[in-house]
Amino acid sequence: MKKTLRYGQVGGSLGAFIGGVHRIGIAFDGRAALTAGCFSRKEEANRETGEFYGLDPARVYGDFETMAKAEGAREDGIDFAVITTPNNAHYAAAKAFLENGIHVLCEKPLCFTVGEAEELCRLAEEKGLLFGVNYSYSGNVMVKEARAIIRRGDIGEIINVNAEYLQEYLVDDVGKSGDAMLKLSSWRKDPEVAGISNCVGDIGSHIEHTVAYMTGLKLKRVAAMLDRFGQPLDLNANILVEYENGAHGVYSCSQVCVGHMNGLVTRIYGTEGAIEWVQENPNILYVTKKGQPTEIHHRGMGYVSGEAAAFSRLPSGHPEGLFVAFANIYKAFLSAVLKKANGEPLTAADLDFPTARDGLDGVRFVRACVESGARDAAWVEV
Amino acid sequence: MKKTLRYGQVGGSLGAFIGGVHRIGIAFDGRAALTAGCFSRKEEANRETGEFYGLDPARVYGDFETMAKAEGAREDGIDFAVITTPNNAHYAAAKAFLENGIHVLCEKPLCFTVGEAEELCRLAEEKGLLFGVNYSYSGNVMVKEARAIIRRGDIGEIINVNAEYLQEYLVDDVGKSGDAMLKLSSWRKDPEVAGISNCVGDIGSHIEHTVAYMTGLKLKRVAAMLDRFGQPLDLNANILVEYENGAHGVYSCSQVCVGHMNGLVTRIYGTEGAIEWVQENPNILYVTKKGQPTEIHHRGMGYVSGEAAAFSRLPSGHPEGLFVAFANIYKAFLSAVLKKANGEPLTAADLDFPTARDGLDGVRFVRACVESGARDAAWVEV
Amino acid sequence: MKKTLRYGQVGGSLGAFIGGVHRIGIAFDGRAALTAGCFSRKEEANRETGEFYGLDPARVYGDFETMAKAEGAREDGIDFAVITTPNNAHYAAAKAFLENGIHVLCEKPLCFTVGEAEELCRLAEEKGLLFGVNYSYSGNVMVKEARAIIRRGDIGEIINVNAEYLQEYLVDDVGKSGDAMLKLSSWRKDPEVAGISNCVGDIGSHIEHTVAYMTGLKLKRVAAMLDRFGQPLDLNANILVEYENGAHGVYSCSQVCVGHMNGLVTRIYGTEGAIEWVQENPNILYVTKKGQPTEIHHRGMGYVSGEAAAFSRLPSGHPEGLFVAFANIYKAFLSAVLKKANGEPLTAADLDFPTARDGLDGVRFVRACVESGARDAAWVEV
Amino acid sequence: MKKTLRYGQVGGSLGAFIGGVHRIGIAFDGRAALTAGCFSRKEEANRETGEFYGLDPARVYGDFETMAKAEGAREDGIDFAVITTPNNAHYAAAKAFLENGIHVLCEKPLCFTVGEAEELCRLAEEKGLLFGVNYSYSGNVMVKEARAIIRRGDIGEIINVNAEYLQEYLVDDVGKSGDAMLKLSSWRKDPEVAGISNCVGDIGSHIEHTVAYMTGLKLKRVAAMLDRFGQPLDLNANILVEYENGAHGVYSCSQVCVGHMNGLVTRIYGTEGAIEWVQENPNILYVTKKGQPTEIHHRGMGYVSGEAAAFSRLPSGHPEGLFVAFANIYKAFLSAVLKKANGEPLTAADLDFPTARDGLDGVRFVRACVESGARDAAWVEV
Repeated sequence: MKKTLRYGQVGGSLGAFIGGVHRIGIAFDGRAALTAGCFSRKEEANRETGEFYGLDPARVYGDFETMAKAEGAREDGIDFAVITTPNNAHYAAAKAFLENGIHVLCEKPLCFTVGEAEELCRLAEEKGLLFGVNYSYSGNVMVKEARAIIRRGDIGEIINVNAEYLQEYLVDDVGKSGDAMLKLSSWRKDPEVAGISNCVGDIGSHIEHTVAYMTGLKLKRVAAMLDRFGQPLDLNANILVEYENGAHGVYSCSQVCVGHMNGLVTRIYGTEGAIEWVQENPNILYVTKKGQPTEIHHRGMGYVSGEAAAFSRLPSGHPEGLFVAFANIYKAFLSAVLKKANGEPLTAADLDFPTARDGLDGVRFVRACVESGARDAAWVEV
Repeated sequence: MKKTLRYGQVGGSLGAFIGGVHRIGIAFDGRAALTAGCFSRKEEANRETGEFYGLDPARVYGDFETMAKAEGAREDGIDFAVITTPNNAHYAAAKAFLENGIHVLCEKPLCFTVGEAEELCRLAEEKGLLFGVNYSYSGNVMVKEARAIIRRGDIGEIINVNAEYLQEYLVDDVGKSGDAMLKLSSWRKDPEVAGISNCVGDIGSHIEHTVAYMTGLKLKRVAAMLDRFGQPLDLNANILVEYENGAHGVYSCSQVCVGHMNGLVTRIYGTEGAIEWVQENPNILYVTKKGQPTEIHHRGMGYVSGEAAAFSRLPSGHPEGLFVAFANIYKAFLSAVLKKANGEPLTAADLDFPTARDGLDGVRFVRACVESGARDAAWVEV
Repeated sequence: MKKTLRYGQVGGSLGAFIGGVHRIGIAFDGRAALTAGCFSRKEEANRETGEFYGLDPARVYGDFETMAKAEGAREDGIDFAVITTPNNAHYAAAKAFLENGIHVLCEKPLCFTVGEAEELCRLAEEKGLLFGVNYSYSGNVMVKEARAIIRRGDIGEIINVNAEYLQEYLVDDVGKSGDAMLKLSSWRKDPEVAGISNCVGDIGSHIEHTVAYMTGLKLKRVAAMLDRFGQPLDLNANILVEYENGAHGVYSCSQVCVGHMNGLVTRIYGTEGAIEWVQENPNILYVTKKGQPTEIHHRGMGYVSGEAAAFSRLPSGHPEGLFVAFANIYKAFLSAVLKKANGEPLTAADLDFPTARDGLDGVRFVRACVESGARDAAWVEV
Repeated sequence: MKKTLRYGQVGGSLGAFIGGVHRIGIAFDGRAALTAGCFSRKEEANRETGEFYGLDPARVYGDFETMAKAEGAREDGIDFAVITTPNNAHYAAAKAFLENGIHVLCEKPLCFTVGEAEELCRLAEEKGLLFGVNYSYSGNVMVKEARAIIRRGDIGEIINVNAEYLQEYLVDDVGKSGDAMLKLSSWRKDPEVAGISNCVGDIGSHIEHTVAYMTGLKLKRVAAMLDRFGQPLDLNANILVEYENGAHGVYSCSQVCVGHMNGLVTRIYGTEGAIEWVQENPNILYVTKKGQPTEIHHRGMGYVSGEAAAFSRLPSGHPEGLFVAFANIYKAFLSAVLKKANGEPLTAADLDFPTARDGLDGVRFVRACVESGARDAAWVEV
């Protein structure tokens, strides 16, 4: 019976940011070892990364297609692949591993088009493979607790949503030409690599997922104003949304709002109560029942539901941050991969990670916002 | 030379809420005495209120038309009238006092239609009379300070606005029929008395004014979703806005968002910095320059600009609340009335109160939101 | 039957700060009229103040002894005297009015010595006169609510207290000689006028009273470190306290702690729960039951106890500030004076204002702290 | 040249809390591998832990003396030992590894007596070995930033300190006999195992170290009230402190203050400014210059000093929590061990971890507080 797993990584050479966070996230539970990789198109960076992690040089590959085939063919091949490349490689890389029978966890956005996303979903389902998409914020215990509270009906039926994800780091690009978007990773300002949207795609999609994860609401349509401020892609967006249950809401995302570092805030209003979660202080949750005082719920306390508490790693008041959110996405994903490998039945907790279906919802949302933005904020179905 | 003034009040009998707040606001500076009134259509309430304040019974009137004529004709007639009736009487009452040469300070909304509002503006201007409209939040020192900071260019050109005014007190009306809107003053749920909008009219208009006061931005158009939840008037609204300078923003107002008492929050984002003001803790202002730490500015400190500090009454850390905001609206208005009476020139500080022109902007905003709401959030020019 | 009252004021000429706040506080309820005064030792300031308020010149007195006798002798004499002089005149002025049968409301500190304070208490009680002392913070609704919650046992038996009152405004005096304590009103740095303590006397005494008011705990002894930083009186103090029930706590007061405007914060810990109140945002109260989420209680909501709600003047979320706290001290005091005048029985709400007994407790506390400070923080009985 | 290290652990079997946090902290930088251990006195737990981590069974030892000798004798022996046992084994275990030439990182408290602590300091210095003590909070970037700001003189000379560490989790033990201190790990309530103090020893010592780390101030004496509430060891303490520079302050620590999860808060007041850090939201720092607005400094921004930024792992607004604080203690410690192994010179950043000298200061502080508490809060030299 398998107790630990092997994984390979595409992207994430030593200097890269998000790839390293994935490796640390996986390391928390000590259940999977980095065994193969295709870390960079630059040969030296690729090789050095493999060496740093003590990999067999034969398993440090020059391209992901070769890696997928080779690892899929090995008796001791990797159990899952982690894809942390720039956006434009997500689709092809994910497809390659799925086709070779390897589970996938991919950074968001899943891919560029609805068609691609649907194909990946179908492929994973046909092959019986697990496909995680790293909407990391839903790894937070108190996001799970928000979902638990809403599911058990404490805030009643949802009637309004107000969510935002505000950052300031691109404000210098407003109205600038020439060397614009300097602080943005070069690939992010290139529509060929980043996709049809910058701000909505990168952070608006986190609003979409976090709200969907907490509430279970399905988006029906959006009316979006996107601001490019002279740049090739959007830097700011204000979006009216309508859910299938008839409720409305507003999503705001921006990379030019001074004073905000990484301000994802979700506020969910129901007929009986409300919930607010603030990513920058993720260990607490504000819960109010109508007519009652607002309560500050702390991760780690006895009143937290079992399904959320299962992911809590430290006592209350000992802050868990973003690395732990990543570790929790992997906690569930690794459980599921292990149990699948061992033929054990999967529980809800094992499956509590965002999937390709969530990735598809994200692609649909971004597409609808971009189309609405191009049509002066006309309503567009999601 | 006149040092003190006489005023009369329409509405505001002893039990009424907002009328009493006006009287206390006026009392702060000890410069105007209540001298006449038409406090209620109910004779007894009218008489008792007059008695409580020791008024000459001859100056407690049964209707405002009679009052306006009589006071306008007296040598020792009132200098200004305070109108604190339900909304549907604002227009006629204001008009009556203006026509009799009496300055007016009227509760918001100024009136129901753009035509009425334009008429009142014209009338006041023709008669050379002062006309204040009680958008009380702009009486707060730190709202004035936000304006001063924006005016001197500290946050650069404004590129995005995010403002909201959220309350919970009508949440029980969602989806209820019969004895609905129970917590709402009976006149507020009657379109004949309250006007074409409840939530946008009552509190959305405060967002509109507070942002306009702080920024000087002119609204160009709005795209608004209004939710009635089965009631005769709106209880919730999410509104995309576009300003004449091309910037966008979002205004959210609601009386069904649990956890919010009286949550007016304005956040103004510019190319160089940002400002946030939170009405429930009005003595501070959050100011951020790009790339710098957020600063918490306190009323009463030496760094506050002269134009705002002129309205500060207590040392820093000694909270000034809503009564002081009212007192500050009157501080400017009374200065202006006194100087006008004495033939002195008016300064900017004397005129630092919202006027009928601001009231007109409010009427236009509410009308545009209601029209947009009726057309599925289509853009409507303001 | 008397419905309104007449009052006289000692101190508080037009430019003076705290005297004006008293007059506005009294004006809130419209039940007492300023009728006599001895506003300043400077004849012109005294006269001008009387004129501004339209007083009969015969009732603007050159000294408080004359005023007390004259008003006590008049048929239409003042019902109560408000004493807002520098500290060193409190005792003599209060005594004069009591001896002439006039109720008194005096600024804190009540006086300089325990003997004087006891004499004033005895005198008021012998004469059957009301004697209020303006510990204004206990006029806040949420301070009253804290008391109500503690009284009904929600936080159990009190086991620890942590309270502080921090300001920054004298930090420039640290270690300076010559023109020191420049920002301090000149009388405050003169032990002859201010008394034996500056910081503990001025603001430490507010900690003592606010905690006593909320909890009903009696102080047994203190161990205090007072820091003068080269000045004639203390600017900073850290104080261990022991209550008669055996619980301990710590009080910190300072006028040299940068970043604090007027930071009175009281935190009361019991066997079943805890309460925190922060003066700079006085409309809310943090309440926690053990093992449960912290609750944010808002003034104006239905869950606020009747005894506190009786003093609430605005709906929740509409901030009440320091002027309202003053108005609430007077609300109770005026009720009591009126009922006494009319021979009506006094209720607990009528008597819900700090009295000379509270002033005596304050004098004892300051004396004990100063003595402990002089003895290297040895324990001194209160 | 060595690039990676081997380590062994004493204590920290699979179920144990803090031992696991150490392993994750070490894993962040991928530079040291768990190679040997003596994880538990229970044979099965010891063996299972070794197996989980794939250790050579020959290097899973039944006692730490054997382990120290065996590892010290091996060519490929461990480079350093991590000691995460209950408190009473710290001294002997640390001594054993030092005597066998192995660097040590030990949980706090270092040991029980000043004599033992001095011996460990001397031993490490004589042998030229590194000795870290895990005061984990000084691993936080913004604690380092507070130190940098204070060092460069921004807040002037320190004149007052107010620090606290409050928790609620033992409140049920107040006044209970029998099955008391149920929530406390059994060893913590046994003076034989935990030492002479529970609350001051466990969390008060974190106040002492964090303030010392930030400020460089040396404690001169303390006057402490310790409350046992009927239990064998203290649960609550209020402590007056005096530093060698003459400044005073107050430290409060408690495990019975309802509403506080893990509330370490340090506030440092100087002649020019002040700093506040709150452990539960560790990524920000409040900085105020006198007369200026309070600034909210965010980890990850350009204004953070180089010495603090060197430890930052995520962009601003992406929360780093307690695991990262541990990782940062190890980041410096591992750098130092590696450079020492390679004969490279050590920089200040390499040595930026708490040492046995800091552990000695902690032992002295706890001893002084306990002695003062036993003498009714008399001053005791540290």
